[in-house]
Amino acid sequence: MSKPRVGLIGIGAMGRGVAANLLDKGFAVSGFDVRPEACEWLLEQGGQVAADLPSLASDCRTIISFVVNDAQTEDVLFGDKGLVGCMQPGTVFVACSTMPVDYVSRLGDRLAALGIHLLDAPVTGGAAGAAKGSLTIMAAGERAVFDLVHPVLQTFGGRIFFVGDKPGAGAQLKILNQHLCGVHLAAAGEALALAQRQGLPLDIALEVLSSGSAFSWMLGDRGPRMAHEDFGQVTSAVNIFVKDLGLVLDTARQAGFSAPLASAAFNAFVSVSGQGMGAWDDSAVMCFYDRHPGTAELPKPPPKTH
Amino acid sequence: MSKPRVGLIGIGAMGRGVAANLLDKGFAVSGFDVRPEACEWLLEQGGQVAADLPSLASDCRTIISFVVNDAQTEDVLFGDKGLVGCMQPGTVFVACSTMPVDYVSRLGDRLAALGIHLLDAPVTGGAAGAAKGSLTIMAAGERAVFDLVHPVLQTFGGRIFFVGDKPGAGAQLKILNQHLCGVHLAAAGEALALAQRQGLPLDIALEVLSSGSAFSWMLGDRGPRMAHEDFGQVTSAVNIFVKDLGLVLDTARQAGFSAPLASAAFNAFVSVSGQGMGAWDDSAVMCFYDRHPGTAELPKPPPKTH
Repeated sequence: MSKPRVGLIGIGAMGRGVAANLLDKGFAVSGFDVRPEACEWLLEQGGQVAADLPSLASDCRTIISFVVNDAQTEDVLFGDKGLVGCMQPGTVFVACSTMPVDYVSRLGDRLAALGIHLLDAPVTGGAAGAAKGSLTIMAAGERAVFDLVHPVLQTFGGRIFFVGDKPGAGAQLKILNQHLCGVHLAAAGEALALAQRQGLPLDIALEVLSSGSAFSWMLGDRGPRMAHEDFGQVTSAVNIFVKDLGLVLDTARQAGFSAPLASAAFNAFVSVSGQGMGAWDDSAVMCFYDRHPGTAELPKPPPKTH
Repeated sequence: MSKPRVGLIGIGAMGRGVAANLLDKGFAVSGFDVRPEACEWLLEQGGQVAADLPSLASDCRTIISFVVNDAQTEDVLFGDKGLVGCMQPGTVFVACSTMPVDYVSRLGDRLAALGIHLLDAPVTGGAAGAAKGSLTIMAAGERAVFDLVHPVLQTFGGRIFFVGDKPGAGAQLKILNQHLCGVHLAAAGEALALAQRQGLPLDIALEVLSSGSAFSWMLGDRGPRMAHEDFGQVTSAVNIFVKDLGLVLDTARQAGFSAPLASAAFNAFVSVSGQGMGAWDDSAVMCFYDRHPGTAELPKPPPKTH
């Protein structure tokens, strides 16, 4: 039995790894991306490129979206020449973007009214995880829909969790995931900048702190970049956490929930971004704590005005 | 060649594991503790109990201290019937307590003036790590002194780091370790309390969040207690982090360093302690975020006053 054709919207850093894994495991892939070079890449890999979204909708009963956010998702579905109106009833739309919980919940209802199933399925693991097919997927929706697309999810997911039977639970968990990632990352910056201020060698500090109860995945991953002030090799940008911790704080406010740690971490990222480092690697959050860690150079005194 | 006699001051939760490991590996141990039951325990294990600190000082060239803090350390050394005056020149005092950096630095100078070597050697890993002989030790002092007592440290240390050649660097690293532990613990409470407020099942949330980039050692260790609201089985109390994050903030202030994450975490612990939960397990920091997580019961309205 040949495997079904899968639609893939958004062939960026994440989508490319997903496409490669789908093709590698025998699925036919119809892709769509507004960037011609992304489409060319997919053709070279042996995929097909849809002429437009309506033709992708008519070809595929499973459509995976790796666009950036809720605005792009809205456009892909309901925009001019979008998917809606051309998808066959029973189609599953797998939304893998990080989006606000209330948007995802409402989207589930809006698509259900059209006979379309939404699987709320955000991921973590980054471009490296997408390439290796080892992403963590947090899926919420009807159980039967989850079971139906499980073979597709398995091509790019290393850990696949069914987290709830209503769209929105996946978005909630992704936002909690970003809460902890953002706080741990800012905490690593705070601790290592303080170590540096005290004159401790950062390589030793990092080794000791990573060896026991102070360990976090973020300290292990981003700590070496902080220790070497290697902020130019961008794996994920400061501005991603400005966006994601913003979603965390929106979620908390809507729940009447005070989140002082998330708030403190958000302030660190937004300050670094506002000082011109938004496109730097997110390990540059360390610069919030010390303007230029690693130098003993003091700022010049302000000019005299009279 | 028989192994030297080691002095051990403070035979509490940590000291007992250390004593058992020293005896197990063939060292003779002379212990001292103000609690008679701790002394009896050591005798049962095959150790000896010193009549007082001066006699311990004259018997041992290596003395390990596992007292609670700097005040007890001061008392043990310089108090009435303390060690100082009775220690032979060249004796090594191994200070394993968590103490302020400036106290430890000054202590190194004060002891050096008396011909006594201070090894600043705080540990992490808790009573369980002490019992297993797997503590992480962050040692600072003269390299030759570190090398001299290394066989002793090996009996209870799984990872032994030489972090600097002046006493104080060990204390600095221990404080940074407590910074990250305290922030990660409060962050776990914040994220899991928010998950609960949103109606997510905590066991699933914990499994998902522990599976990838949101992981911290603290989330893995304390998260299950939070998910089951198991705050009565005390591994380490809320008040320990009130003390240790207080040391972090003192250190930061002395360095002219702003530490908003440590400050937010400190506020969570001190608030929970001030509301009567200081002796509860430190996972109870979760109660800062929601008065009584897991119940939908709302507080009663305040009584009318007229």
